[in-house]
Amino acid sequence: MLQKQPAREGDLYSLIEDFFQNSFATDNLLITEAVRRMLAAGGKRLRPRLTLLAAEAMGTRAVDHLPLAAYMELIHVATLIHDDVVDGAATRRGVNATAVDFGNRISVLAGDYLFAWIFKNVTADYPPPVPNILSSTLADITDGEVLQLRALGDCAMGLSAYVEVATKKTARLFAASCECGGIMGGGNAIAVQAVRDFGLHYGIAFQMQDDLLDMTGDEAVIGKPVGNDLREKKMTIPVILALEGADREFRADVERFYAEDDETRERIVGIVRGIGVHGGFAKTKVAIAEYLERAKLSLAPLGNVPARAELVAIADALLKP
Amino acid sequence: MLQKQPAREGDLYSLIEDFFQNSFATDNLLITEAVRRMLAAGGKRLRPRLTLLAAEAMGTRAVDHLPLAAYMELIHVATLIHDDVVDGAATRRGVNATAVDFGNRISVLAGDYLFAWIFKNVTADYPPPVPNILSSTLADITDGEVLQLRALGDCAMGLSAYVEVATKKTARLFAASCECGGIMGGGNAIAVQAVRDFGLHYGIAFQMQDDLLDMTGDEAVIGKPVGNDLREKKMTIPVILALEGADREFRADVERFYAEDDETRERIVGIVRGIGVHGGFAKTKVAIAEYLERAKLSLAPLGNVPARAELVAIADALLKP
Repeated sequence: MLQKQPAREGDLYSLIEDFFQNSFATDNLLITEAVRRMLAAGGKRLRPRLTLLAAEAMGTRAVDHLPLAAYMELIHVATLIHDDVVDGAATRRGVNATAVDFGNRISVLAGDYLFAWIFKNVTADYPPPVPNILSSTLADITDGEVLQLRALGDCAMGLSAYVEVATKKTARLFAASCECGGIMGGGNAIAVQAVRDFGLHYGIAFQMQDDLLDMTGDEAVIGKPVGNDLREKKMTIPVILALEGADREFRADVERFYAEDDETRERIVGIVRGIGVHGGFAKTKVAIAEYLERAKLSLAPLGNVPARAELVAIADALLKP
Repeated sequence: MLQKQPAREGDLYSLIEDFFQNSFATDNLLITEAVRRMLAAGGKRLRPRLTLLAAEAMGTRAVDHLPLAAYMELIHVATLIHDDVVDGAATRRGVNATAVDFGNRISVLAGDYLFAWIFKNVTADYPPPVPNILSSTLADITDGEVLQLRALGDCAMGLSAYVEVATKKTARLFAASCECGGIMGGGNAIAVQAVRDFGLHYGIAFQMQDDLLDMTGDEAVIGKPVGNDLREKKMTIPVILALEGADREFRADVERFYAEDDETRERIVGIVRGIGVHGGFAKTKVAIAEYLERAKLSLAPLGNVPARAELVAIADALLKP
């Protein structure tokens, strides 16, 4: 694990963008267009970057793993296309959601096609267990979203149930991105487990940070109104941690909010303030820091390969948006 | 290919039903419930029956291929769940569509989960090329549905474009059901190709018959109002064949119907009558008979195995609902 990392032209983000712009096309023109639009709307390409870094960490060249990395982003894109149908969201990353411009019917089909097209390519081009990891991951993502839907408005949801949902709907894909990169990079079992654990812990932290930004972020930066999760009656980590040990009055107020249909901006701002007062944000930051620390510690078996430093930099960047 | 067929307890339909009732469950309770409801609403289980017969045709026992057969029906069920979201359909097989009782959000997720769960199991339990056949088939199904959506109201759609759509959205899954049964039954390349071709031609005939019944069937039997495809502005085979060589007046009337928003029962009945007068039904029956004939001829390489007679019986049963 101490081999020198092969030289790389340009940064990973540009490599991935170039690949999408020059090499991505499905056999269906309309769906290719819908996906290209979604890709053009932006995104940090975190999942494919993790795949490429995991492959580099095993001593191979990032450029040889671009299709695999692209599939990780495309699984994410397909779930976003379906989420937009599911949530009736009007915008995504600041532009119109696919469902708005193409209609729900095309959006459902576009997501299905993209999933199928990815699996078709992955089963043709990658050895076991890669195809199984990707399909298990997609099963977990959807299972996690169903669990989240069923828990809407459930103020009794505790930290462990939250972590289960966050793991399934978000962290599993980060873990799979790392794991598949590690496997195809030829890493041994311990090294692959190291990058997989990094992805899993980073992914949980990522979801927690997403929850936090929903209440404390700048609307222009996060691309949606503050308190959107509350509006949708989602149980997010700042609420759960604020309720731990909160006074009876605050708990009753939150329970009333989740039970009632009063999602005015004023009411939401009031709940957000209460969450802050009861330590919800401070405790969330501690939890995020803990998961990021675990993520970085997971990488110890990799030794001092340069990719490890880049993975650590990605973890550290989560707190500096 | 002349080996004696192994003994089988009970008919294939009962085998499949027993399997679904006693052995089917996913890891998500809500989704298992949604799928069980869809299964309980009925269906002829044609796809899994074809899988089992194809496996029997190669000299193996149907009972050893039940999970594989079940996946074929479940792919179909998952596409139906998504179709219901897509089309805003209120009933399916006479009962409420999943989307009505569970909501669009759960329906999209349930279909996604089911696809992922199937691929997870298939990639874990079946060798190449089975996982690739199934994912390519799902890509084709969705591609076919997108092509169909884009062709809505397009009176210039000809027979070959129609056959392409019918092949992708319907026949490919019948072909894959046969092909995978044949492969897992240990058939050689020629025998597998034989059952695959049977499924493909049978599937095209099946879609044509479905189109025909939409205009000539008994509403109580087909479980939806007559002329529903016309209401949705779908180009179906009776319309296409009626337009071939029709007089200018009838063509203009059909073009007006597809271009305008007058889907009253009266207007639809008028168009259906015109299609009949211009030979749309008679010509469709001829086309169906031709595809069924091709399907049966495809089976020649199988010799005289009993499963072949059962496949032929399934083909013949299409015309006697």
